[in-house]
Amino acid sequence: MTVEDTIGRIIEEVNRISLPGPGYTRPSYSPLETQAHAVVAREAERLGMTVSRDAASNLFARLPGRDRAAPPLHIGSHLDTVANGGAYDGQAGVAGAMALAAHFVESGETPPVDLVVTVTRAEESVWFPVSYIGSRAALGRLSAPELEARRSDTGETLAHHMRLEGGDPRAVLEGPGLPTASFIEIHIEQGPVLFDAGEPFALVSGVRGGLRYREARIEGTWAHSGGAPKASRADAVVAFADLVTALDRHWDAILADGGDLAVTFGRVDAASSEHAFAKVPGRLAFCIDIRSGEDGMLERMDAILQREIAGIEERRGVRFHMGPQSRSRPASLSAGLNRRIGEASAALDLKPRTMLSGGGHDAAAFAAAGFDSTMLFIRNWNGSHNPDEGMDEKDLALAVRALAAAFADRQADGGARLPRKAFPIEKA
Amino acid sequence: MTVEDTIGRIIEEVNRISLPGPGYTRPSYSPLETQAHAVVAREAERLGMTVSRDAASNLFARLPGRDRAAPPLHIGSHLDTVANGGAYDGQAGVAGAMALAAHFVESGETPPVDLVVTVTRAEESVWFPVSYIGSRAALGRLSAPELEARRSDTGETLAHHMRLEGGDPRAVLEGPGLPTASFIEIHIEQGPVLFDAGEPFALVSGVRGGLRYREARIEGTWAHSGGAPKASRADAVVAFADLVTALDRHWDAILADGGDLAVTFGRVDAASSEHAFAKVPGRLAFCIDIRSGEDGMLERMDAILQREIAGIEERRGVRFHMGPQSRSRPASLSAGLNRRIGEASAALDLKPRTMLSGGGHDAAAFAAAGFDSTMLFIRNWNGSHNPDEGMDEKDLALAVRALAAAFADRQADGGARLPRKAFPIEKA
Repeated sequence: MTVEDTIGRIIEEVNRISLPGPGYTRPSYSPLETQAHAVVAREAERLGMTVSRDAASNLFARLPGRDRAAPPLHIGSHLDTVANGGAYDGQAGVAGAMALAAHFVESGETPPVDLVVTVTRAEESVWFPVSYIGSRAALGRLSAPELEARRSDTGETLAHHMRLEGGDPRAVLEGPGLPTASFIEIHIEQGPVLFDAGEPFALVSGVRGGLRYREARIEGTWAHSGGAPKASRADAVVAFADLVTALDRHWDAILADGGDLAVTFGRVDAASSEHAFAKVPGRLAFCIDIRSGEDGMLERMDAILQREIAGIEERRGVRFHMGPQSRSRPASLSAGLNRRIGEASAALDLKPRTMLSGGGHDAAAFAAAGFDSTMLFIRNWNGSHNPDEGMDEKDLALAVRALAAAFADRQADGGARLPRKAFPIEKA
Repeated sequence: MTVEDTIGRIIEEVNRISLPGPGYTRPSYSPLETQAHAVVAREAERLGMTVSRDAASNLFARLPGRDRAAPPLHIGSHLDTVANGGAYDGQAGVAGAMALAAHFVESGETPPVDLVVTVTRAEESVWFPVSYIGSRAALGRLSAPELEARRSDTGETLAHHMRLEGGDPRAVLEGPGLPTASFIEIHIEQGPVLFDAGEPFALVSGVRGGLRYREARIEGTWAHSGGAPKASRADAVVAFADLVTALDRHWDAILADGGDLAVTFGRVDAASSEHAFAKVPGRLAFCIDIRSGEDGMLERMDAILQREIAGIEERRGVRFHMGPQSRSRPASLSAGLNRRIGEASAALDLKPRTMLSGGGHDAAAFAAAGFDSTMLFIRNWNGSHNPDEGMDEKDLALAVRALAAAFADRQADGGARLPRKAFPIEKA
């Protein structure tokens, strides 16, 4: 029961470390995130693994493989959370990775190449307006301006917080980053597809890209709710509602056409001290998150957005100030790794489907850097990024067993199917 | 220049008393409101008026009239403000009332009946969820449960805050309230009608009633913005947008039919620490303020609201929790007083229009208690309940001069047109 025990212990110990609830809150590059990394370090050292940290304070716990010269297999996820997040987003992947390592140690098997449990920093981009900070830092792909991004709660820079948690921002910029290898991330699905289908886990073929305006606002005209005739109003809330319903209609039409799209207005603020029930609202702040697996779709939606905004400004007498736009490109994951894991699963009588990831994940950053990278999705319920995230640890254990089978040392079994360069880079 | 000087001085001195800006903030039954009342008391005492306060700490400054036994003419307004309100909502009416008193004192004229400058408490119902607190207390119409209403910023009861500002809540309940007389309130229009028409002031024929839900919320389901398929979502923000756009369409249709209506969603909060750009919002708090001069219209809109909500709940998978409803009934004001002031204005070559008030005002509470009650609206710009309220003090001075002419002592001029009961009660 090494796999199950390790999973349960790591999830429990990590989640003891949190700001007050509901749910779990470990901000990116916070002392809490650092403490959570330390849980993994202790567990890895108990297993005899070699623990190291890079300049961005990402954690690596290495278990030697048969071929020490071959590119290693990185496997891991992150331990920061959104505010009031759940018990599994990030944690499940780290626990699964450690469970795989524990399986090798316990069974006495040697993995074909070095297994590197990789715990990244700052994956949840709600804290800093930068995607995949820890993994991109590990890969030598973080830029100097990004290090100046400010954390949403403290207002301090990424460089500042990185330093506080033991990192060295200057060294991050100097690179050169990890040599190209393989990366596998286990993660809860964050959607209801596997739960509804009754399937324990899936393989992920790609990660949706995103187009975001995090600091958009609408400026209207403050007025008295009883005294301002309709025609004289420039109501920021009504203008916002127009935009939401317009994009909702476009979304319906695009889905009906078979397009891939998700549109979310996650935060809406017309509740400052200036707002009151008896005042026509003169201001509203909001953010918008548009995701798609199709690169052209983000362009198309941005054009639709601008067109709708122009119409609403004209009709409602308000002004939209959309603020900076951030983007992440859709990423394709490794068909080769998916085939290998799928075949090993089949031998265990499991037939994981292959599906798209709606959320962005570190695996996309590794893929973008040329890694042979993929993900396993674990069935979950109540979505993710909320205190009620639900997952059955048995499903996670099944996925770990599928990985153990996929990376069993076939030479030890007398097989010779593993090439010298274990996981060749595959352009997706 | 007594009228102009008094107006300028009172507005300036009162507005020096405020919480930090933008704009002016004097909460209902706050020490700041009390200090503002003291400005008027000092000015009145300088004029030789008799100052008194009732159990609710409303202020009365009395100038004796020729017929001391006749019901007096109350004239005044309030000095509390909404949060970050403007320089004139309330202040202009108090300054105008004191300017009228100063005109009588300065000119040596005696008004036909006692002139009572009446400064009410707690007119802005953003602080306590109760309408017309000060005037209804003065009229013996405040109820024991209303005294337990809690102030939105402090969470303390109305009775508590009333006591802190020198009032006696028990005595307020014991009444009996002011004897029936007349009441006139000068107030900025709070809308653009007079400004657009180029008219300095108007007479008010009635006050719109209101239907409010101040603590409504929508409960949806938190989910990941990238991982939750559209069909699986219960998005509180999208549900809210549906409601806003639906009511906007009904409002258009009702206006096109000649109905009187105003609909405002003044405060919208989907910005708690649980909200993030990457989360489908599972909760949204809002308030809704529906106003009309037609009583049946509020019933009709409430039915429309319930019907729309039922449809949205069905369609979007969310639940609306509307919380308590509060209402104020539309009030008709005094046609007799309006005729008298209109005739006096005509003699000054002014032809004020008669219009409806969108906002609720103390004059409505006096009218409901059987007072012969009316209002004068002063042209303003930038609406009201905001830091940019604009008004020309010359317009206010013109309205004061019209009142001075309307209540000139015609007996002293040799006339005998004023009946013993100066301003008979008129059922509107």
